[in-house]
Amino acid sequence: MKIRIITIGNEILFGQIVDSNSAYIAQKLNQIGLEVDEIRSIPDDPESIKETLHRLQPESDVLILSGGLGPTKDDLTKKALCDFLKTDLVTDESVLNDLEERFKKNKRILNGLNRDQALMPRLSTALPNPLGTAPGIWTEYEKTIIINLPGVPFEMKNLVKTEVIPRLQKKFDLPYVIHRFLSVSNFPESDLSILLEEWEDHLAENLQLAYLPERGKVKLRITAKGKDKFKLEEKIESEVQKVIPLLGNHLDSITKAKTEEILGDRLRELDLTISTAESCTGGMIAQLITSVPGCSDYYKGSIVSYARSVKEKMVGVSQETIDSFTVVSEEVALEMAKGVREKLETDLGISTTGVAGPSLGEDGKEVGTVWMAIADEKKTWTKKYFFPYLEREDFISQTSKTALQNVLKFISPND
Amino acid sequence: MKIRIITIGNEILFGQIVDSNSAYIAQKLNQIGLEVDEIRSIPDDPESIKETLHRLQPESDVLILSGGLGPTKDDLTKKALCDFLKTDLVTDESVLNDLEERFKKNKRILNGLNRDQALMPRLSTALPNPLGTAPGIWTEYEKTIIINLPGVPFEMKNLVKTEVIPRLQKKFDLPYVIHRFLSVSNFPESDLSILLEEWEDHLAENLQLAYLPERGKVKLRITAKGKDKFKLEEKIESEVQKVIPLLGNHLDSITKAKTEEILGDRLRELDLTISTAESCTGGMIAQLITSVPGCSDYYKGSIVSYARSVKEKMVGVSQETIDSFTVVSEEVALEMAKGVREKLETDLGISTTGVAGPSLGEDGKEVGTVWMAIADEKKTWTKKYFFPYLEREDFISQTSKTALQNVLKFISPND
Repeated sequence: MKIRIITIGNEILFGQIVDSNSAYIAQKLNQIGLEVDEIRSIPDDPESIKETLHRLQPESDVLILSGGLGPTKDDLTKKALCDFLKTDLVTDESVLNDLEERFKKNKRILNGLNRDQALMPRLSTALPNPLGTAPGIWTEYEKTIIINLPGVPFEMKNLVKTEVIPRLQKKFDLPYVIHRFLSVSNFPESDLSILLEEWEDHLAENLQLAYLPERGKVKLRITAKGKDKFKLEEKIESEVQKVIPLLGNHLDSITKAKTEEILGDRLRELDLTISTAESCTGGMIAQLITSVPGCSDYYKGSIVSYARSVKEKMVGVSQETIDSFTVVSEEVALEMAKGVREKLETDLGISTTGVAGPSLGEDGKEVGTVWMAIADEKKTWTKKYFFPYLEREDFISQTSKTALQNVLKFISPND
Repeated sequence: MKIRIITIGNEILFGQIVDSNSAYIAQKLNQIGLEVDEIRSIPDDPESIKETLHRLQPESDVLILSGGLGPTKDDLTKKALCDFLKTDLVTDESVLNDLEERFKKNKRILNGLNRDQALMPRLSTALPNPLGTAPGIWTEYEKTIIINLPGVPFEMKNLVKTEVIPRLQKKFDLPYVIHRFLSVSNFPESDLSILLEEWEDHLAENLQLAYLPERGKVKLRITAKGKDKFKLEEKIESEVQKVIPLLGNHLDSITKAKTEEILGDRLRELDLTISTAESCTGGMIAQLITSVPGCSDYYKGSIVSYARSVKEKMVGVSQETIDSFTVVSEEVALEMAKGVREKLETDLGISTTGVAGPSLGEDGKEVGTVWMAIADEKKTWTKKYFFPYLEREDFISQTSKTALQNVLKFISPND
């Protein structure tokens, strides 16, 4: 089966937004055993849309388009679709009735542009969109299913879950695609690859291995596809068991990829609680921790102490320490980590203080400098990093992820 | 000119990562007047890469590929490139020397896989990558420039800035592409489009308008392209001046798109400081505020009060209020907003308390419920939202953005 996703929007091609819609759609398809062969982003002009449909439809079983279904002039997908299908637009009465009712309820006037949203290509089916005014469109044309979805992420996501996935599952007899992640830390990708070469060469049939490197860690992904879910899982498990002794302490998880999830499991197991005091990371460590459902089992809270006064008053860093060592210093990081665990009454405290840029720190420290500290009841850990080559946003994100990796190491039995 | 970006990686097609590399590359190209016609994500197998090169090269002036240059087995781009170019790989001595020196300095052993990273297609030029072991590759083939970049974001970004952009600027005589953003709030897209129809129909030549809707706001983007930067800016400015009276108070900014940036400017103008007390948003409001360089002018800090004890002890919410009204309540949101502005000594305090899901709140509140509050010295504002259709991650992000929009409204003179 050939499956393609097409996202429509000049803002993607201008680099003004990141296309996260296609990742969501691909992930949901993958979960029901459908693998995407290609993702394309194209401009929102009718010619590009038509040309792409002409090129891709004959060689695709499923084509999913996202974007270009809104009410305004720059949304031209529906017209392009009609041209391609050589058909015209007709009013879908049930969509129109539904729109009328919803507008009435919200005391808004249904204008001409809204009314046009009930127009559907003849022979296409409207996919009800209770969260927006533009319904999705399901079209079966020759041997291809063409699905149009609105570009607004939460509308698109809801349509994928409630309409697209159930309809595709009904339509096809689908295999299982299973991914298993292992997380390896402090092991360069190339050395890891040499260490695992023999294991990889003898991997069970139908299993595929991928190396996904990040700073300080490599995620290993094993992928299997087949009809018998239980057998696939068994196969993967047996390969994982073989690789465990090869990796020893470098193996942070044999089920999960994300550090915040691995850390969450570990904290829960060890019955430890955590808090953060963040300066340059501006709350992103907190945000990573709280991205994991159920984190209230081990996470209590954070103090984002951007201003000096907050470091002193809320976290308990002493004036003297700041005066003697400046805010971006080992001493301040340490007092922050100790302070926040005391104030918030947690087992562990993590802290960051640094210069995210683009301007120098107030104490003249170079952009990219950061001090990190971790404290528990008995011990502390500090480290200075220097990421001068990272842009502000990447500096914040890398510092935050590095902090979590260090906590994982800090609480690991072999460290 | 036809420009395409190709990102290589099964993890993109599986939906396991969002392809943000292409947005970065597109944005940087756009800044020097180059418009991207298409972005494609393809699997990291040599056949797909070769086929894509065969299809796209004849109709492209610039082809930029990202990904597939690492040392491990799943990285096969270089071989596919050679096959396509009908050439072979030869060792680039200067790349090899550089790698040897760097490994020596870091006391690591240069293994065979690392050594292979110095192999370059004959006639291609290596683009030095000081942040990783895989250099970029610059190839001029027929009338097309083919550029290969590593997929690791910070390595790719550095290569784009230091090598790709300067080389492309040298190669081509480029026009200017200018984007201007206006930000409109509380105005449905379809009504806005009708209001602006006449203005839009009479837009100056070469200007393009786009509507980019988000929850509660619409960003308008005006784009101009041409040789005379000053004239383009003048043209845009004159159109902006015409639209100002049409939009009145709904116009939040005539230069910026992001609420956190607009709010930052406004706070600086009004000489106001701000702090946040966050429960369900887990620090994301702080993170949005601190994503803006220079935010220390108006932002002091935040308390992420995930646990009840932190709400009480650090933010000063009373036990009684929580017992009487539960944590997800107007009363608690209000005490949080008031509490944080007092504790952190800021003019404004913002708070959120709600249920991000997927499980019910501890007090049995439904997933998607959130109370928000804003307080200054004299007045307060509260509102309940209900986003039951949003996934955890989207709930957090939408609640955070909505909070910032409400602060902007709160401090606006006409509210």
